[in-house]
Amino acid sequence: MNIGVVGLGRMGGNIARRLMDAGHNCVVHDVDAKAVDALAGEGATPAHSLDELVAALSAPRAVWVMLPEGKITEDAIAALAGKLAADDVIIDGGNTFYKDDVRRGADLSSMGLHYVDVGTSGGVWGRERGYCLMIGGETAVVERLDPIFKALAPGAGDIPVTPKREGRDPRVAEGYMHCGPAGSGHFVKMIHNGIEYGLMQAYAEGFDIIKNRGSKELPEDRRFDIDVADVAEVWRRGSVVSSWLLDLTAAALAGDPGLDGFEGRVADSGEGRWTIEAAIEEAVPADVLAAALFARFRSRTDHPFSDRLLSAMRFQFGGHKEAAGPETKQSKT
Amino acid sequence: MNIGVVGLGRMGGNIARRLMDAGHNCVVHDVDAKAVDALAGEGATPAHSLDELVAALSAPRAVWVMLPEGKITEDAIAALAGKLAADDVIIDGGNTFYKDDVRRGADLSSMGLHYVDVGTSGGVWGRERGYCLMIGGETAVVERLDPIFKALAPGAGDIPVTPKREGRDPRVAEGYMHCGPAGSGHFVKMIHNGIEYGLMQAYAEGFDIIKNRGSKELPEDRRFDIDVADVAEVWRRGSVVSSWLLDLTAAALAGDPGLDGFEGRVADSGEGRWTIEAAIEEAVPADVLAAALFARFRSRTDHPFSDRLLSAMRFQFGGHKEAAGPETKQSKT
Amino acid sequence: MNIGVVGLGRMGGNIARRLMDAGHNCVVHDVDAKAVDALAGEGATPAHSLDELVAALSAPRAVWVMLPEGKITEDAIAALAGKLAADDVIIDGGNTFYKDDVRRGADLSSMGLHYVDVGTSGGVWGRERGYCLMIGGETAVVERLDPIFKALAPGAGDIPVTPKREGRDPRVAEGYMHCGPAGSGHFVKMIHNGIEYGLMQAYAEGFDIIKNRGSKELPEDRRFDIDVADVAEVWRRGSVVSSWLLDLTAAALAGDPGLDGFEGRVADSGEGRWTIEAAIEEAVPADVLAAALFARFRSRTDHPFSDRLLSAMRFQFGGHKEAAGPETKQSKT
Amino acid sequence: MNIGVVGLGRMGGNIARRLMDAGHNCVVHDVDAKAVDALAGEGATPAHSLDELVAALSAPRAVWVMLPEGKITEDAIAALAGKLAADDVIIDGGNTFYKDDVRRGADLSSMGLHYVDVGTSGGVWGRERGYCLMIGGETAVVERLDPIFKALAPGAGDIPVTPKREGRDPRVAEGYMHCGPAGSGHFVKMIHNGIEYGLMQAYAEGFDIIKNRGSKELPEDRRFDIDVADVAEVWRRGSVVSSWLLDLTAAALAGDPGLDGFEGRVADSGEGRWTIEAAIEEAVPADVLAAALFARFRSRTDHPFSDRLLSAMRFQFGGHKEAAGPETKQSKT
Repeated sequence: MNIGVVGLGRMGGNIARRLMDAGHNCVVHDVDAKAVDALAGEGATPAHSLDELVAALSAPRAVWVMLPEGKITEDAIAALAGKLAADDVIIDGGNTFYKDDVRRGADLSSMGLHYVDVGTSGGVWGRERGYCLMIGGETAVVERLDPIFKALAPGAGDIPVTPKREGRDPRVAEGYMHCGPAGSGHFVKMIHNGIEYGLMQAYAEGFDIIKNRGSKELPEDRRFDIDVADVAEVWRRGSVVSSWLLDLTAAALAGDPGLDGFEGRVADSGEGRWTIEAAIEEAVPADVLAAALFARFRSRTDHPFSDRLLSAMRFQFGGHKEAAGPETKQSKT
Repeated sequence: MNIGVVGLGRMGGNIARRLMDAGHNCVVHDVDAKAVDALAGEGATPAHSLDELVAALSAPRAVWVMLPEGKITEDAIAALAGKLAADDVIIDGGNTFYKDDVRRGADLSSMGLHYVDVGTSGGVWGRERGYCLMIGGETAVVERLDPIFKALAPGAGDIPVTPKREGRDPRVAEGYMHCGPAGSGHFVKMIHNGIEYGLMQAYAEGFDIIKNRGSKELPEDRRFDIDVADVAEVWRRGSVVSSWLLDLTAAALAGDPGLDGFEGRVADSGEGRWTIEAAIEEAVPADVLAAALFARFRSRTDHPFSDRLLSAMRFQFGGHKEAAGPETKQSKT
Repeated sequence: MNIGVVGLGRMGGNIARRLMDAGHNCVVHDVDAKAVDALAGEGATPAHSLDELVAALSAPRAVWVMLPEGKITEDAIAALAGKLAADDVIIDGGNTFYKDDVRRGADLSSMGLHYVDVGTSGGVWGRERGYCLMIGGETAVVERLDPIFKALAPGAGDIPVTPKREGRDPRVAEGYMHCGPAGSGHFVKMIHNGIEYGLMQAYAEGFDIIKNRGSKELPEDRRFDIDVADVAEVWRRGSVVSSWLLDLTAAALAGDPGLDGFEGRVADSGEGRWTIEAAIEEAVPADVLAAALFARFRSRTDHPFSDRLLSAMRFQFGGHKEAAGPETKQSKT
Repeated sequence: MNIGVVGLGRMGGNIARRLMDAGHNCVVHDVDAKAVDALAGEGATPAHSLDELVAALSAPRAVWVMLPEGKITEDAIAALAGKLAADDVIIDGGNTFYKDDVRRGADLSSMGLHYVDVGTSGGVWGRERGYCLMIGGETAVVERLDPIFKALAPGAGDIPVTPKREGRDPRVAEGYMHCGPAGSGHFVKMIHNGIEYGLMQAYAEGFDIIKNRGSKELPEDRRFDIDVADVAEVWRRGSVVSSWLLDLTAAALAGDPGLDGFEGRVADSGEGRWTIEAAIEEAVPADVLAAALFARFRSRTDHPFSDRLLSAMRFQFGGHKEAAGPETKQSKT
C-alpha cells in the first residue's frame, strides 16, 4: 500500500521503516528536511511539504501522523484536513487524549474525511519486535488499512496461543485490535500506560525493599546483602512476576547494579494522568495506579510544601525538631 | 495522693507539676540529678535513686514511669519491680508497644504487682490543657488511681456535651478512659497517633495544592495566588475541617507563611508503624493511614532506589532521559 | 442591605434566615412557590419570578444564587444575567466547579455585570454557627458586599486568637476570606472538601482498627473489646486529634455504637473529585486525598470487576479457589 | 541424588515428580498414606514415617519439607531434627516467614545440622515450566545440593540472554539463586509475592476502568464498549505491559469475559503482609504494594465499619442520607 507518514522522530521514522520492510510505499514528511532526506535514502518518497505529500499519494489517501501530543498534532491534522479529499483517512498514531479523538473524528467526518486513532506501544523496540496497535475508528476504514496494521504489528510470533479464543477476532492474536469508534484506540492505550506505571512502581518498591535490607541503619542481625541484579534475572524464569519490564530491569541492573547513572527524577506523560481522571469519571477505585502516578510527581520535588507543613505542625504541638541528616530512616519522635 | 514519677523530661516533668498543682505529693527521680533538684525546688520530694523513691512512698505504692519507649523503659520497670512490694502499681505513661504491655502485665502480675499502661496525649500543651489519658489495666487498680488520672486529665471544660451519653462512664467526658486490660490503653493511643498522621497528611496535601496553584509552571490563566495562612485561619470558624491541628497550622503559617524555617524531613514514631501492623493483623484496609506513614518515610530520602529504578526502566524501553531541573513538574514523556 | 436569594433549599433558606436575623432585607425566589411563601412568613419579600425579584431590589442589585451545582445553576445565572443591569452582582454560593466560575466571571464582566463565587461551609449547622465563607471576585465588589458576608460568617466567637496575625486581614478571623479573583473562592472550598474526605477517612480507618480488635477471628490473646463511642468522646479533650468532625463522630457513636443504622454506601460530590484533578494538573502528590475518594467509590460497589479479575488470575496460576464465607478475614493462600 | 520429600500436596508432589524426572531418587512421606502410595506408584520410595524416611536416605541426608507455613512446618522440622545426624540438611521449600528461618537456621546449626530455606515460585505450572528458586543457607551446603536445585529450576530455556551478565553467577540465569544466609531465600520470595500483588492490582484496576467505560451510568457520548478479553490478548504482543500474569489474564478472560465465575473475594497469604512489615522496618515507602494488599482485605468485607462511620458523619454534619441502590456510582452530595 501507499501511505503518508508525517513526523519522522524516533517513533515515526521507525514506523516508516517497518512499513517499507513489509513492502509498503511510504511518502514521508517532517519539518526537519534532513529527516526527510535520511528516510528517502532508505527508500521512502520524500515530501518537503504537506502539499507534496498529498500529491504523491493515490486516492483514497491514508496519512499516518506521528507527532507529539497536543497542539502540534492538532495543527498538523487541521492543515492536512484542508488538503485532503473525500474518503481520505488521517491516522493519529501519537498519544492523543481520547476525548480529542472523539471531537476530531466528528469534525473530520463532517468534512467527508475519516479519522483513525492508533495507540502504538513498543517504544524503541518496536522497529524490531513490532508495535502493539490499539485502533479506534469506523470498521470499513480500519479494514481498508489492514495491510498497514498487519505490517506494523508483531504478529503471532512464538507466543503461546491462548486457549478458548476460537471464534474470536484473529487480528488480536497478531498484535492489533480494532477497539471501537474514534477515541477507543487511544483510550485503551491510555489505560495501557496507566497500568505500565503501576507495574513499574510495584517492581520499584519491591527492589527498594530488597536493596535497603542491606542498610547499615538496620540492626546487623536483620540485614541481608542481596544482589538485586541477580534477583531480577532469576525471576525471569519460572516466577509469577516474569514480564518484559522485568527483562528490562534485569538488563538495567546487570549493567549498573547501584543505578548510579540515574538521579531518580521520573517524568510522566498525559496517559498516566488521564487514566486517573477516567477512573474518577467512572467512580472506579484506582489506588495503585494513582499511587504510581503520585510517586513520579514526588520524585521531581525535593521538599514539598506538604512535608514542610508536617514539620511545622509537629513543632507546634510537640516542640519536635526535624529529623537530622540526609537519610535518617530509623528516627523516632 | 502520694505518687512516684520516674523520668523528668519534657513530659514527665510536666506531669509531676500538674499533679502537684492538684495537691498530690510527687516523689521524683531521674538519672539526671539536676532534673530531680529542679523539681524539688518546685515542691517535689527528690529521690536520687530508685531505692530512695520506693522508700519515700507509702504502700500500696504507685510509680509513674515516663521514659522513652523501648529498652530504657523496659529496664527501668524491671529494676523497679525488683524493689516494690505486693499490691504496688507500676504505671507506664510512655509510648510503649501494646504487646509489650500485655507481656509485662502478666509478668508483674505473677510477682504480685500491678501494671497500668497509660497512653498520654497532649504534648507540650498538656501541662496547661491537661492530658487526654487512655488507660489499660485491672479495674480495681485503675479506680484506686482515679485521683491521679482526674488531676492529669483536662476535665469537661467548656467543650459541648455530647447528646445521648447519659448512663455512660462519666470519666470519659472528663478526658480519661479505662479502655480495658493491660495493653489496651497504649493500643488506643497507638491508633490515636495513626489517625494523627492521617489528619496531618490530609491538611498537608490540601495546602500543598493551594500553594502550587500559584506556580509559574501552570499556564497563567489557571493560576491563583492564595494566602495559605489566611486559608488556615478562615477554616477555623464554621468550617467542617476545623480542628486543633488546624489551629496549630494557622499559628505556624501566620508566623512563617512560606515555612522557610523547615526543610521537610518528618520523623515518625513507633505508633504510626504499629498502627499499620495492627491493621494488617486484623485484615482491615488502612490506605490513608499507610499513605501518611509512607509520606514521612519518603520525606527523609532524597532519591530512593525505587525512583532510580523507574528512570532506568524508562531509559531501557524508551530511551527516555530523566526529567531535568530540580522542580520540573510539568514535564512529559 | 437589600439582597435577592434564589434557591430556598436547606442551604438557601437558612442563608436568607441568617441574613434577616442580622437585619438585612431578603427578596426570595424559588421554583417551589411554597418555599417562597414560607420564607415570606418569616419576614422575607416574596418573588414568584426572577422578574419580580429583580424589580424588588434596588440598584446596584445583589443576588445570591444557592442552587445545585451544574446545569441548574448555570441556567439560573444566565436567566438572571439577562434581567440585571450594569454594575449588578450575581453571587454563586453553591458548589460550582472553579473553572466554570472563571468562565462565567469573564462572561458576566463583558456584559457589565459582576460575578462573585462563594464557597460556603457549615452544612445544616451554619444557620446557628455561621458559615465559613471563601470568596472570589473583584475587590471593590467584595467590599461592597461586606455587610452580607459579615452577617453570614460565624464571627470571631470564643475561638482563641492566632498569634502573629497582627497586620493581617481582620475579616479572615471573623470567618470569611476574599481569596482572589473569580473562581478562587470555589477553588479553596473545593480543597476544603478534599481535605474533609481525607480527615473523615483517617478517623474511619482508625476506628475500624479499634473495632476489629475485638473480632472473634483474632486469637483470643490478641483481642481487646474497646468501646468506640467512649474513645471518640475521650479524644475530644486534650488529644491531638480533637476536631469538629470528631465531635460529630462522638455524637454518632453515642447514639448508635454499632452504627447499625447505616449500610456504608458513601456518596461523593464534585469537590472531592476535582481536588484530585487539580493536584494532577499541578503535579502535586495527593495520596491521602485520592485514597479517601477511592474508598467512597469502593463503598458503593459490591464486587468490582477488579476483584473478580484478581480471583481469576489466582485461579489460573495457583488453582486457588476464592476465600469462602462473607467475612473470612484471616484466610490465607 | 538421594533426597527426602516431606509433604506431598500439590506443590510437594510435583517437586518430587520433577526431581524423579531428572533421575533423582526421592524418598517420600506424608501424613496421608494414600499420597505416599500414589507417588510410590510413580517410582518414589515410600516412607510411612519420618523414621522410615531417615532410614532410607544415605548420609549426609537431605530432606525437602514442603508443608503449609506455620506450626505444621515448625513441628515437622523439629521432629525431623531429632532424628537426623550431624551434617544432614533440612530444606524448607514452603512459605515460611524469613525471621523464623533465621531462628531455625541458628537452632539447627547448634545441633550440627544445616538449614536451607528455598522460596519456590511457579504454582501449578512449576512441574512443567520448572520452579524459580530463591535459596538461603550456607554456601557449601547450597553447592552440595546443586543437582537438586538445577533439576527443579526452569533452566535458561529460550528466554533472551541479558546483556552484561558476563562474569556473574551462571546459576541465576538457569532460574535459581543463592541469595545469602538462612532466611534470605524466603525474604526474596516474600518480596516476589509482594510485587505479584502489586502487578495483579495494577492490571485489575486498568481492566476495571476499561470495563466500566461501557457503563450505562456514564453519559452515552462518553461510553466505549471494549472487549476486555481482546485487550488482554493484544497487549501480549509488543506492548510494554506483556507478562506472564497478562498471559493468564488473557486466558481467564477468553473463557469467561464477564468473570461471572468469580465473586471477587480475594485471599492473601503471609508474604504480602510481611512485605509491608519489612518495608516499614526499613522505612521504605511501599504505597503500591500496601494498596494492593488492602484491596484484598477490602474485597472480603461487605460493609466495613469505616464506611458506615463515614455515612454517620455525613448524616451528622449535612443530614445526608446514604447513596441509594446497589451500584449508584455517579451519585453526588
